[in-house]
Amino acid sequence: MGDLTTSGWTDADIERLLAPVARELAAPTSLSPLPYDLNAGVPDRASLPWRELAEAAARALEADPGGALTYGGTLGYEPLRAWIAERNAAETGLELNSSWVTLTSGSAHAIDNIAATFTAPGDVVVTGAPTYPGAIRTFRARGAEIVTVPQDGDGLEMGPLASALEAQRAAGRSVKLIYVVANYDNPTGATLPEERRIELARLAAEYRALIVEDDAYTGIDLDGPPPTSLFQIMGGEGILRVGTFSKTIATGLRSAWILATPRVIQALTYMRFDNGASPFVQRMIFEYLKTGAYDPHVARLQGIYRERRDAAVSALRERCDSFVTFEVPRGGFFLWLRLREGLEARALARAATEVGVAITPGQMYYAYEGGERNVRLVFSALPPEQLHDAITQLGRACAAARVTP
Amino acid sequence: MGDLTTSGWTDADIERLLAPVARELAAPTSLSPLPYDLNAGVPDRASLPWRELAEAAARALEADPGGALTYGGTLGYEPLRAWIAERNAAETGLELNSSWVTLTSGSAHAIDNIAATFTAPGDVVVTGAPTYPGAIRTFRARGAEIVTVPQDGDGLEMGPLASALEAQRAAGRSVKLIYVVANYDNPTGATLPEERRIELARLAAEYRALIVEDDAYTGIDLDGPPPTSLFQIMGGEGILRVGTFSKTIATGLRSAWILATPRVIQALTYMRFDNGASPFVQRMIFEYLKTGAYDPHVARLQGIYRERRDAAVSALRERCDSFVTFEVPRGGFFLWLRLREGLEARALARAATEVGVAITPGQMYYAYEGGERNVRLVFSALPPEQLHDAITQLGRACAAARVTP
Repeated sequence: MGDLTTSGWTDADIERLLAPVARELAAPTSLSPLPYDLNAGVPDRASLPWRELAEAAARALEADPGGALTYGGTLGYEPLRAWIAERNAAETGLELNSSWVTLTSGSAHAIDNIAATFTAPGDVVVTGAPTYPGAIRTFRARGAEIVTVPQDGDGLEMGPLASALEAQRAAGRSVKLIYVVANYDNPTGATLPEERRIELARLAAEYRALIVEDDAYTGIDLDGPPPTSLFQIMGGEGILRVGTFSKTIATGLRSAWILATPRVIQALTYMRFDNGASPFVQRMIFEYLKTGAYDPHVARLQGIYRERRDAAVSALRERCDSFVTFEVPRGGFFLWLRLREGLEARALARAATEVGVAITPGQMYYAYEGGERNVRLVFSALPPEQLHDAITQLGRACAAARVTP
Repeated sequence: MGDLTTSGWTDADIERLLAPVARELAAPTSLSPLPYDLNAGVPDRASLPWRELAEAAARALEADPGGALTYGGTLGYEPLRAWIAERNAAETGLELNSSWVTLTSGSAHAIDNIAATFTAPGDVVVTGAPTYPGAIRTFRARGAEIVTVPQDGDGLEMGPLASALEAQRAAGRSVKLIYVVANYDNPTGATLPEERRIELARLAAEYRALIVEDDAYTGIDLDGPPPTSLFQIMGGEGILRVGTFSKTIATGLRSAWILATPRVIQALTYMRFDNGASPFVQRMIFEYLKTGAYDPHVARLQGIYRERRDAAVSALRERCDSFVTFEVPRGGFFLWLRLREGLEARALARAATEVGVAITPGQMYYAYEGGERNVRLVFSALPPEQLHDAITQLGRACAAARVTP
């Protein structure tokens, strides 16, 4: 055996064996060790309902130990799927049941499942520019080509989307998916107005591309409910709606779902390779939901995040007005700052690091070029006073980073 | 909006949009509704440590609600990774630490992560014939070509493996991975003898293919410890060892790991698209391990499964001796039955269904042809008396299905 233990595998051997795409992708995101993290899109820690979840876990285990602790199937725990279908039916007026729902390990995993099912190398996926970088990585990992459509303050622009779809058709290429965060976009915070939703739905139907409506932030409504969902507008056809408990209960549960027609759900289960997500976690969540605590909890979160958004907005106006402009988001976790003349995103992010603030340069959110005049600011993770302090520091970083021509 | 709700997406539209591989894969496995399930490789339900896990969940949440319920990073909870590294270091004598470990959502997900990282369309993955069908599906989903090597009662045959590797090299093709369940194989129950392990390690090093050592059943040792691991023989280089808590704690946790050099672990994290597995579940498991209950629990499981294996073996000798032959496995959950003259696997499975017994025809475990003279029998899920009854019924099914020439 001694010979083999010195068989001398080198890093170059490993490099040579990697799938090519594993060399090409951007790194996954990670948390910052800096004192003020305006970087990670994470919920408030103090409001996590951990006591209720501990009780729910105990009830789920006691009620059916074998069910909670044995493989639960690829689709996931049926009562939770039915609960999700009922909520969506009540919201949209569509007739839905649990056969419209599959449960995943977080919405990132949901997007991966969708990418696996519908994209093959060379297929086109349309996203906004900017958009959620996890989606870019995930689609690229399946060999998809990302075609981007610009976003303005109201989200995806419909004229460029129509042109992009037509150009792909003219080139004989198949646009499989149009990925959109219609409510409280990551990173822009934009909410797509109803008229754009109707136009997006029309274009997707005309070009027979599936819409992926990523609802990661839906529920974090800070100025009343968002416009009619794309899912409702499309009557549930030709669309996959991705929802999650990450922002309304806890990101650490890794529990989310995809809502789509039963035929699409069936196709998604074929492209699952994890033997299903955890039935224990799914049952724990269902026990928590059954208590009725969920809606009041979400209402409480809305209050917390509204206060944080407003604190961030006033601090920015007070401390950063000569450096940035922005629009006030109607929900979610993010402010998308446009940098005024003389500021560049990476330079600002570096200067912010010097004063203890983590903030994400806009380039992170672009599949290709772009974002050098934007940064994303997360207002969800810090309480108002700390947000104020962080943004005061950010103002100093802006002053330090500004280049006067 | 009315127009769009009748936009008339058809199943044919969805079919056209599917990734080609989503049409080609076999269906994922599912549980049987029959009274005697000798089909699903699941642990005994009565011995699931649900009370201890409920307490562990409460402790994990109370000790650090924010840590348990917020994204935990792609690698996973460091103390659990360190625990796994220490166990493997103690077993193998190698110097290992947490940078050698990444946590996944079950070992099926671990295999998917490995497939994503190392295989591109056209790459070759070597597996046994037969082998675990989940592995076949997962590698094929990434476009890999499966090259099979026959298995005998001692597992993978080394002569054919050497020939297969040489043939691929001669054809100028890259063998990326050799997938093997060296301990208590699924489906054959075979344990690879030490001399074959040494030869396998030598061949993998010579051809610079990575070994995937799937240890799903390791720990379920029914006749003492298994031979030296491939991981130890290879000094930890050029190998990915996949371990799981599924069979020793609970399949419903969906918690497993990959052990490999830090360079390989880093590559694996690039090809994760789930924002990490659940830190809550990882911390719950760690709290359970900390109590010291794990080793006595595994010892108890060994006793339970030994009794079931022995019950299945005597029932088979008593009731099915004129229909099947088999070797007695040293561990794991499975008996691999060879059918005597006049019996065919699918016909027997159908006849078994008639008498209330679910059993898996051997064809399920072959990437190509084969398996018509085998069935897999799971002895882990049923207590001895029920196993005896099920196998009595199976004997009737054998009599009914036998074709006399």
